[in-house]
Amino acid sequence: MMSPLPASSATVPGVEAAFRAARAEAEARDRADPLGHVRERFLLNEGTINLDGNSLGSMPRAVAERMERVLKQEWADGLIRSWGGAEWFRLPEIAGDRIAPLIGAGQGEVVVGDSTSVNLFKCMAAALAMRPERRVLVAQADNFPTDNYIAQGLAELVPGVTLRAVDTGQALIEAIDSSVAAVVLSHVHYRSAAIEDMPAINRAAGASGALTVWDLSHSTGAVPVDLGGSGADFAVGCTYKYLNGGPGAPAFCWVSPRHLPNARQPLSGWMGHQSPFAFDYGYRPAEGVRRFVCGTPQILSLSALDESLKLWSEIDLSALFGKSRELTSFFISLVEQTCTEFGLAVDSPRDPEKRGSHVILRCKHGLPVIRALAAEGVIGDFRAPDGIRFGFAALYVRFADVVRAVEALHRTLAIRSWNREEFNQETVVT
Amino acid sequence: MMSPLPASSATVPGVEAAFRAARAEAEARDRADPLGHVRERFLLNEGTINLDGNSLGSMPRAVAERMERVLKQEWADGLIRSWGGAEWFRLPEIAGDRIAPLIGAGQGEVVVGDSTSVNLFKCMAAALAMRPERRVLVAQADNFPTDNYIAQGLAELVPGVTLRAVDTGQALIEAIDSSVAAVVLSHVHYRSAAIEDMPAINRAAGASGALTVWDLSHSTGAVPVDLGGSGADFAVGCTYKYLNGGPGAPAFCWVSPRHLPNARQPLSGWMGHQSPFAFDYGYRPAEGVRRFVCGTPQILSLSALDESLKLWSEIDLSALFGKSRELTSFFISLVEQTCTEFGLAVDSPRDPEKRGSHVILRCKHGLPVIRALAAEGVIGDFRAPDGIRFGFAALYVRFADVVRAVEALHRTLAIRSWNREEFNQETVVT
Repeated sequence: MMSPLPASSATVPGVEAAFRAARAEAEARDRADPLGHVRERFLLNEGTINLDGNSLGSMPRAVAERMERVLKQEWADGLIRSWGGAEWFRLPEIAGDRIAPLIGAGQGEVVVGDSTSVNLFKCMAAALAMRPERRVLVAQADNFPTDNYIAQGLAELVPGVTLRAVDTGQALIEAIDSSVAAVVLSHVHYRSAAIEDMPAINRAAGASGALTVWDLSHSTGAVPVDLGGSGADFAVGCTYKYLNGGPGAPAFCWVSPRHLPNARQPLSGWMGHQSPFAFDYGYRPAEGVRRFVCGTPQILSLSALDESLKLWSEIDLSALFGKSRELTSFFISLVEQTCTEFGLAVDSPRDPEKRGSHVILRCKHGLPVIRALAAEGVIGDFRAPDGIRFGFAALYVRFADVVRAVEALHRTLAIRSWNREEFNQETVVT
Repeated sequence: MMSPLPASSATVPGVEAAFRAARAEAEARDRADPLGHVRERFLLNEGTINLDGNSLGSMPRAVAERMERVLKQEWADGLIRSWGGAEWFRLPEIAGDRIAPLIGAGQGEVVVGDSTSVNLFKCMAAALAMRPERRVLVAQADNFPTDNYIAQGLAELVPGVTLRAVDTGQALIEAIDSSVAAVVLSHVHYRSAAIEDMPAINRAAGASGALTVWDLSHSTGAVPVDLGGSGADFAVGCTYKYLNGGPGAPAFCWVSPRHLPNARQPLSGWMGHQSPFAFDYGYRPAEGVRRFVCGTPQILSLSALDESLKLWSEIDLSALFGKSRELTSFFISLVEQTCTEFGLAVDSPRDPEKRGSHVILRCKHGLPVIRALAAEGVIGDFRAPDGIRFGFAALYVRFADVVRAVEALHRTLAIRSWNREEFNQETVVT
């Protein structure tokens, strides 16, 4: 669809030299990349560089074949029998077990279904029920909006519950007092990519008797996560970013095994019942994490995700997380060598150990810049008011892609900055 | 997959004559059926008769092509741009508008997403918020379990809310007093197929100041529904039954336009926000029924449903509903002519105007009978303790299929009743 990227238009000698050196370095790194072969498992348009895999991951090739089988064999031919015969019924747990090793969870502790928003509601409500004498939810004020919208919805529904939104970091830890039932926060920040100190926050919450609800949407498959080892209580996460589950793929939900027997969530649909086909009048939650399933799972979306997740069993996670850090560091370094004259500023942590797998740059005319890049086949995204965000999914992004993206960014800024008019034509972002 | 059905093994002369007459009648009716051509739009295994389309509808052929396009063009190639470019963002409303004419709703009143269970929660919670001085939910005690499980979950979450489960009919109407915020019930009963008197219940609720939440899972696409004309308040429904949206396809949600401006639901995820990409801290619900969307919709499942729904714009609904009634009447009549000697009894209303598009028979050894039928390619289902249930989706079920199914039922009962042992080997139902 996209036309191939034209050669760099850089004319400043130092910049040109920087790109030349970066191209050579990228070539060497890609050649030595132990994960390089994984890229072939994805259906990629070679004219496009997906640096928005932190928003929507690219498609593993195997999904198309799986979907064909699900449609024609399982649905059209197997019909209702596929709930057992094709394991549709168990798919929320099967997919959950595939995610578990990525987040420091055990088998039988993770379940997939519903959206991240719905799963946040389940976990926050379960935490409130476990702490009936505490009625405050603590949240990061600058968290991804849906987390706080859901907390607001819960606080409006349940009389007496209030939401305390605070700054991240020390302010958040200080906000955890004896009135707090749960702390809801993201592990990797959707905007800055800053990584929260999960063990420290779990310790602070635990010491005060509060429970933690972690949103792992920007962490899973991008950075190391150790829910069990760090003493977390609940977690949810998105699967359409680094897990490549497809647009709007169902989210996951983790409950610490030490809470599971007592954890009750109010979205008590029949598919989380101990015996859904007994058609009992009273709800009895399933024994394990299955009790966090609500209604009938969306099998087409869930099957695509399940297929995408199979890829992970072959991946050396420490190599992957290392490559993520190297890709973002390489990007930051090249941007700083070539683009700072245009007023760009890195707004993500410098320390790669404290950074997720995306980078946000402050950029005055972010929206038209992102659009101009897209027209050249480099997909990033804009985050109001002035952020341009680029994600580096190490399963399929190459070091060479980083160079091509920064070259396109440089070209865009260099050419377009001559024409400030164009930068002011901001229209609706989608 | 299934071997073709063998010829009838009926030996009793009267029974044989009844089947012979039925085959002739079926042939004539199928030939005259104005909807007969619609069957070609489905991918059907000719060795199988899907009489469980009230549980999982068959697959429209167009879905396979749509899914191929969604995967390869929209996801793999379009990536994040497809939220706008392929209308992923608007799909909940686009699909909702396709459902509206089937349920007596207007354009812009229906939205698709999440499960029936989750949507029940939204509607019941919205109703409670609109009636803060009333804290009772009235429910049908024998409703499909998830409706009452969700009501229980809500009642446990919100202090002071109680669930009053009563018999259907007059008892339900009498249970609606001035303490009742909402009445939650199915329009067509999942087991008996009995149709509730929607106008009468809406009137009784309205007179007392209570709101109605209708579950249309077994109604939509099967019987006439007039939400707007009958004065209903809220409705939800399943799309994987008569709407053929695929396994676990997302459910729909309808809010009466007279309530919409004031209806607030607590699953206030970012996709129901007035301006999701503004990343505001505070939740502001979208103007229209979009406020009943929660998190990111599962686009693969939703796209399959959207494609399936396109079929309905060509369907003469009164012809379809008429055929549904004729199919069930034909089935009941043939069962009674041929199978009553085996102790079968019809447990659905006799009056076709009071009956949905499925029929339940009481049958002592229901589970092994349903299994034996499945082995012959006739798919029905078992509902404990003694119900065998058959659904007649008029878009693809023929009168000839009814005859073949009753022949298989007769054969199963006639042969198997000699061997009572086998009937007692009940194993887990899936």
